[in-house]
Amino acid sequence: MIVCRVETEPAYDVVVAAGLLSRAEEVLPAAAAPGRVVVISDENVAPLHLPALRESFKAHEADVTEVVLPAGEEQKTLARAEELYGVLYERRMTRHDTVVALGGGVIGDLAGFVAATYLRGVGLVQVPTTLLAQVDASVGGKVAVDFRAGKNHVGTFYQPRAVMADVDTLTTLPAVERRNGAAEVVKYAFLMGDEMLFPVEAALERAPTSGERDPVGLCDERIIAACVGYKAAIVAADEREERGDRQLLNLGHTVGHAIEAAGGFRRHSHGEAVGLGLAAALWLSRRCTGLPATEAERGERLLDAVGAPRRLEGVDPDLVVDMVSRDKKATAGEVPFVLLEALGRPVRGIRVGPGLLAEVVAWLRDR
Amino acid sequence: MIVCRVETEPAYDVVVAAGLLSRAEEVLPAAAAPGRVVVISDENVAPLHLPALRESFKAHEADVTEVVLPAGEEQKTLARAEELYGVLYERRMTRHDTVVALGGGVIGDLAGFVAATYLRGVGLVQVPTTLLAQVDASVGGKVAVDFRAGKNHVGTFYQPRAVMADVDTLTTLPAVERRNGAAEVVKYAFLMGDEMLFPVEAALERAPTSGERDPVGLCDERIIAACVGYKAAIVAADEREERGDRQLLNLGHTVGHAIEAAGGFRRHSHGEAVGLGLAAALWLSRRCTGLPATEAERGERLLDAVGAPRRLEGVDPDLVVDMVSRDKKATAGEVPFVLLEALGRPVRGIRVGPGLLAEVVAWLRDR
Repeated sequence: MIVCRVETEPAYDVVVAAGLLSRAEEVLPAAAAPGRVVVISDENVAPLHLPALRESFKAHEADVTEVVLPAGEEQKTLARAEELYGVLYERRMTRHDTVVALGGGVIGDLAGFVAATYLRGVGLVQVPTTLLAQVDASVGGKVAVDFRAGKNHVGTFYQPRAVMADVDTLTTLPAVERRNGAAEVVKYAFLMGDEMLFPVEAALERAPTSGERDPVGLCDERIIAACVGYKAAIVAADEREERGDRQLLNLGHTVGHAIEAAGGFRRHSHGEAVGLGLAAALWLSRRCTGLPATEAERGERLLDAVGAPRRLEGVDPDLVVDMVSRDKKATAGEVPFVLLEALGRPVRGIRVGPGLLAEVVAWLRDR
Repeated sequence: MIVCRVETEPAYDVVVAAGLLSRAEEVLPAAAAPGRVVVISDENVAPLHLPALRESFKAHEADVTEVVLPAGEEQKTLARAEELYGVLYERRMTRHDTVVALGGGVIGDLAGFVAATYLRGVGLVQVPTTLLAQVDASVGGKVAVDFRAGKNHVGTFYQPRAVMADVDTLTTLPAVERRNGAAEVVKYAFLMGDEMLFPVEAALERAPTSGERDPVGLCDERIIAACVGYKAAIVAADEREERGDRQLLNLGHTVGHAIEAAGGFRRHSHGEAVGLGLAAALWLSRRCTGLPATEAERGERLLDAVGAPRRLEGVDPDLVVDMVSRDKKATAGEVPFVLLEALGRPVRGIRVGPGLLAEVVAWLRDR
């Protein structure tokens, strides 16, 4: 069991361990006051993991309501949030009661947004069950729903009382979900440099990505905890994205988000889009911030090793460029990019004009 | 011009002055970066005050969009928020752009909630035009919409970049709106004691409440600024209602909110309900916290002097008692009350059982 303390105000723990769900009662008392609990999950996750959590709550003597939603990003709407407010209203939830988000990023974002805004904030425990949610979405307090073409366009910052990441849940995922999270792990490796690159490369050598492009080697307690630890330090220093350090976490995401949006969030998964976005970041870093060719190649090899897509397909490149200007971090239509001077040496606030942006998107399509 | 600094993170100024709207450009540069501005107002306020603000923005070279909604609490819905998100989306608002809320508490709460949650927070300037909004709603960062019978049940905490309170706007209000705010002014006087009681009593003597029960004497720069200053200090110490000091501001509001909700938010205005709630707080303070009889009488005289209703009418007393248990601050069905040991000496966390609660509501009805 590895515990990462996130020093936000108030602080909370991210607990990373195998088999954690079946001993959740060890962690819960610190996270959720005894009282009403509403567990929000989806149809993929609930059959696999809700029974274990239910047993733990029994030991904890909580008054539990379970809500199981259909799976998928299209659930992350204001309409669905309103439905969940209705459940909380009928259960007469108070601020001292707890919403538990059991699932991937969609459930975490949606249930988190509802918990953040109901009564101006009720208790929230994140139980992420995907690699992506464990290394990224469940840490940092970003919660949101989608609005029109804008992913996470309506949301807020809201810290959970605790995060419980059971790495055993990752083995039940389809390969595509592991690839989804793998792109974020690669992002951390690019940001952190050798201290993270070597363990990730070694893990992928021990358990090579198979013909299905399944980066199963990354589902590892220490690798996940290292990602969480890096993000926790950044989040604690910049809880509401005000000072800019937190922008480092956007490496690969500016182009990545635009690719996702341009494909209507259907053509590419988040991980595939971020994989392409990271390739774009390597290319732009060669041009703008002097990333050495050998390092760009090492980065590309790592993207290949986790099964990231090689090429942008099925999406209009012009639309990708247009979508960048709709990025939440845009000012006057320009988005500050995070790029790399070297692996492990990110720089932020780099201006990338529309011409260069069009060029890198064309490269992604034609490479 | 009186400027109250609210020392939240980040800090902001509440500027209180006569004629402020027609020289808004003196205040705006510090509050809103040049860029896109969406002014949200309602059909009552816009014809009176939007022209002056528009002129100021011209001087400020902002790119302004104006949204004028129908007036009334029934606008404070998720559906209306969604419509406003649509406007912000179409205007391609970024986090550096600004929403200006021009109106009373409804507009401030609704536009504030939208600004707080769009892109996880865009700029917000509150321009309150009612006495209630100037002394209360626009300071402190509480933003929300209603959900079912739950007033402000969906919301968050979000500090504006600035608040501009032009006391001249108060003269255009109907008397009922001045009564609405007067109850909050009386609340501050009860909390602060003689330093505020004397000026309020004197102002009401200079400009006595007329046959229309119009407490026009309270529309005074110094009285409003004193209320704001008291609230600002409490809010800065307890931005998210976590430590409890902020609960002091709920004096009279636990029963007040319940009366409002029990009447379906139609039978009593917020101010009338709070007036009754303050009378209930005086009664309960006599019984529970030793408020001397002479002080309770002084308090009741002040409530009469501002035209507060004397009696609870047209609302089911049982429903009022039930609604108290749905209060946002309730724990396990019990709400901690704020009561008075003396005028100027509030205490919080007082337990009031359902029996005593039924008794005070019956007293309100029968007195």
